[in-house]
Amino acid sequence: MPRIDLTSVEQTNRTGYPAEHAGAVDGRWVRRLGPAHGISDFGVSHVVLKPGAASSHRHWHEDEDEFLLMLAGEAVLVENGGRTLMAAGDMAAFPKGEPDAHHLINESASDCVFVAFGRPPAGDCHYADIDLLWSGGAYRHKDGSSY
Amino acid sequence: MPRIDLTSVEQTNRTGYPAEHAGAVDGRWVRRLGPAHGISDFGVSHVVLKPGAASSHRHWHEDEDEFLLMLAGEAVLVENGGRTLMAAGDMAAFPKGEPDAHHLINESASDCVFVAFGRPPAGDCHYADIDLLWSGGAYRHKDGSSY
Repeated sequence: MPRIDLTSVEQTNRTGYPAEHAGAVDGRWVRRLGPAHGISDFGVSHVVLKPGAASSHRHWHEDEDEFLLMLAGEAVLVENGGRTLMAAGDMAAFPKGEPDAHHLINESASDCVFVAFGRPPAGDCHYADIDLLWSGGAYRHKDGSSY
Repeated sequence: MPRIDLTSVEQTNRTGYPAEHAGAVDGRWVRRLGPAHGISDFGVSHVVLKPGAASSHRHWHEDEDEFLLMLAGEAVLVENGGRTLMAAGDMAAFPKGEPDAHHLINESASDCVFVAFGRPPAGDCHYADIDLLWSGGAYRHKDGSSY
């Protein structure tokens, strides 16, 4: 049956971030719904953000469109231009190549839940606030050196 | 600002179905959010189904993964194997190439709202219940003849 049973999908707070940048996403619990349900054209991540957690460090992708949809709770969307409160039913689109670094932070006292869509990027991902760059399939310092 | 203002996006009940099959989707009101917000890696359709309306005729795609997320109200997901009530927050995945024909019908007395994700298909789309086939960029009879 195509209706998704979330409890059947592993939920993890793993991250590939270098250890010194990993703390911000300790409270980010992700279920990757695409592989679990035979979908490969795009990725679908169901994400629970615990109070205080961020969806990622603030970033933008050279070659990955991203779309998010808030399912429950509230989070603050932080971009170059400011902060926007996102509530259940709100949606946002982040076109590839636009250098508007973005992430969500759960500043509330309750969990928030969102679903994020995208395709695995081949190109670089730029981080606005910390010395981090995703390039050539690895996290690096902004000067290109390894962690 | 990436947060989407739905009122800024055209809402239409247009369909490409041949006239004799168009009535089922008269009450399907679609906003195409991808093009309106610079997203092209995948399509994002915000859909309001009026009472009695269907999301489409029951179909499956040879080469398009589909994913849907219910935002509000209720609809019945009809597949080869039966009927499933879908409520706000429910999600479903339809992998390409799986011949499990599916659609949603709003059998309730209120609007329902869902968001559907997919990529424009190049291959055929097969309809289970009516004499309809999408092939070669056009709707046809199942024997391949034109409408």
